[in-house]
Amino acid sequence: MTEKNLADLTATEAAHLIHEGALKSQALVEACIGRIREREDDVRAWQYFDPDVALEQARHADERFANGEHLGLLHGLPVGIKDIIATADMPTEDGTPANKGRQPDADAACVRALREAGAVIMGKTVTTELATRFPGKTRNPHNLEHTPGGSSSGSAAAVACGMVPLALGTQTGGSVTRPASFCGIYGLKPTLGMISRQGVTMQSHTLDTVGVYGRSTQDLALIGDALSIPDPSDPVSYSRAIGGLAATVADRREKPAPRFAFVRTPAWDKADSAAQKSIIDFVARHSHAITEAPDPVIFETIIDAHRCVQHAENAHHFADIEARARDLLSPTLREILDLGRTIPAKDYLDALALRDMAYRELTALLDRYDALVCLSACGAPPRGLESTGNPIFNGMWTLLGVPTVTLPLLTADGLPLGIQIIGKRREEHRLLRNAAWLDRAARV
Amino acid sequence: MTEKNLADLTATEAAHLIHEGALKSQALVEACIGRIREREDDVRAWQYFDPDVALEQARHADERFANGEHLGLLHGLPVGIKDIIATADMPTEDGTPANKGRQPDADAACVRALREAGAVIMGKTVTTELATRFPGKTRNPHNLEHTPGGSSSGSAAAVACGMVPLALGTQTGGSVTRPASFCGIYGLKPTLGMISRQGVTMQSHTLDTVGVYGRSTQDLALIGDALSIPDPSDPVSYSRAIGGLAATVADRREKPAPRFAFVRTPAWDKADSAAQKSIIDFVARHSHAITEAPDPVIFETIIDAHRCVQHAENAHHFADIEARARDLLSPTLREILDLGRTIPAKDYLDALALRDMAYRELTALLDRYDALVCLSACGAPPRGLESTGNPIFNGMWTLLGVPTVTLPLLTADGLPLGIQIIGKRREEHRLLRNAAWLDRAARV
Repeated sequence: MTEKNLADLTATEAAHLIHEGALKSQALVEACIGRIREREDDVRAWQYFDPDVALEQARHADERFANGEHLGLLHGLPVGIKDIIATADMPTEDGTPANKGRQPDADAACVRALREAGAVIMGKTVTTELATRFPGKTRNPHNLEHTPGGSSSGSAAAVACGMVPLALGTQTGGSVTRPASFCGIYGLKPTLGMISRQGVTMQSHTLDTVGVYGRSTQDLALIGDALSIPDPSDPVSYSRAIGGLAATVADRREKPAPRFAFVRTPAWDKADSAAQKSIIDFVARHSHAITEAPDPVIFETIIDAHRCVQHAENAHHFADIEARARDLLSPTLREILDLGRTIPAKDYLDALALRDMAYRELTALLDRYDALVCLSACGAPPRGLESTGNPIFNGMWTLLGVPTVTLPLLTADGLPLGIQIIGKRREEHRLLRNAAWLDRAARV
Repeated sequence: MTEKNLADLTATEAAHLIHEGALKSQALVEACIGRIREREDDVRAWQYFDPDVALEQARHADERFANGEHLGLLHGLPVGIKDIIATADMPTEDGTPANKGRQPDADAACVRALREAGAVIMGKTVTTELATRFPGKTRNPHNLEHTPGGSSSGSAAAVACGMVPLALGTQTGGSVTRPASFCGIYGLKPTLGMISRQGVTMQSHTLDTVGVYGRSTQDLALIGDALSIPDPSDPVSYSRAIGGLAATVADRREKPAPRFAFVRTPAWDKADSAAQKSIIDFVARHSHAITEAPDPVIFETIIDAHRCVQHAENAHHFADIEARARDLLSPTLREILDLGRTIPAKDYLDALALRDMAYRELTALLDRYDALVCLSACGAPPRGLESTGNPIFNGMWTLLGVPTVTLPLLTADGLPLGIQIIGKRREEHRLLRNAAWLDRAARV
């Protein structure tokens, strides 16, 4: 097996080899470091990366294996961490000069969970400014002239080009799903509450959700299991670990084929014609499993509702950094904060009430289908690095707090495009099983 | 026993006699009806009262007793229901001409719980307009020229003068505690979530709390046990029934005496000198149990934070009734809604964040004491019916979502004044035990 091959393993394949003793963490991490050396000048996925810190963790993992110690789910696997997620041994700069050199005292809860599962914390990946709109330096590994999407730009690009098999992102609008779509990888944005947000720089407590990237649905399930740990310090945290995601996805026993509803969503008109054609063709090819369904009527105003909640909460959560360093914030973000401060509480509360009504309509639709499918983005990654693209196909699901998986099954203009699978809140098992089914069906 | 005596029994005494077969529900309800006939022209506690509907329920309760059926905690006991709480067999007019003749299809969850516990739903008690500031017709039974307080005016007045032993109120600012203080009765405003709000006209989902009135701490515990039923339809509802409140209060086994902290609170300067003197004397008389403690520093801004949340949520929740019938709303309420609509979402979110910080400071104080005590109101019930008095001693506890008990242990200017006992969220057992201890100590 060459170094190149190792860096391109799925996390699940690598975990299997490590647990069998057929692969050392150090070899895997060295392969990933090799890939970073090869591609980082072009892709620019990393905000902080020190090969020695990564290798030290890998050697420690190999020693523990040699000592016969209990192995966690992610033993020896390198994971990239979006740079708004606190790490005790690496800076966490939030993509803003206002937090240059910030060094947290402690790991975020999700990083702690990764370490407990045996993972190697590979480094910190580039985020847009405070995980909002203003882009970081990362380029799309499929075409360097194009955006990788954002805000989890570095995490998605790193997984896409073999720098790490797994990475953490976060989503407030479309920051997990869109970069996965643009970079051609698998992404899971779980239900609000499945993964603790303790230690993650907050911009919107109603929306902020930690998500994961991998190279297969099985990978998403594997890291999902490691990260589902109840945390009373995050008020939305599940009260119990869910577990069993990987076993659910691995279970190939014959079951009735799931029934999917294709929804255009109120964002449809913002999709370009290549993207529209791509998903319509996909639906037609899979007409045995996918039926088009009309959008719930209430969805008409859901995009505005999402924006209202995000901007109002931005103004609240970023008040301190703005007071301290407004001139270090981008004009884009300053404009959002100025706008956010003008939103009346009544509009904000109306938007939250609309979310609750829309979720009731969504569950009625999901009582009739196993999952929904829609585009993951408006099209292929746009050319240019001055914007990370439009999150309009994602914000509604973030507002609704429902879990989504994006699968790299479409293309548009010769570049990757994802298809989004949506389920009910807290039904990650069912969603991942259905997503895995569709992924296999599409690859036959 | 004369009719008069029966109407003045505590709920606990009456329940005991009924369960023993020594008292029929019909006799008890007839005594209460007698009291209503005697005093209603003066006190005006009832918005809807039909003696036949009450007597029919009482006779049914007596039949079930005669048939040896299982008896609930409140078997045969009459309970008054504030007229913003839905009843399937009586109108629910919310104290506003805009809802004149409104007849709900179903009982509110708390009314259903009362019926399941065997209670007789005696009638609907007067509320201020939509449980906000504009007064109803009720007068204080201790002095008809004075306000009974609000918004649960009728419920407090009815319990105070023997029309019912128990009643339901609700609190958004000080609407359970203040009327109890003014009318000289016992009141419990539990933790947000102990009693479901399903079917209760909502003005503020962050603040609205169903509470209870009785004639002793044991009465509060008795009806509290009947009403603590988990309800998934109210997102703040406890996930389990708490139960055992009455047993906790009844348990007189020797325990270490509780230690209370007297806090003046940021409302202190609004209390009149008679009220200030009354509680300072009380604290001095009970110096073996009560020590003065400084207010948590953060409390300084908590009164404003409460007002901000209430008015912003009022504008949201009353938007429909305002759109339909603004000219039927009082100028007072219209002014609140006009103000509420101008509150920025950022201020609203800042207020909620302040609540969370203040609760952390409060729990630090409650780690050192068993409970806090403070005034229940600014003074004796004010003369005149054009205002229901100032809720400034109560709103902070409502915002914090903590349980409070008010005990009728003080007087000012020859009229009743309550003392408020405050505990940690979800610690109703501990709070009621401590309140009962202080009540007994004060009556020795």
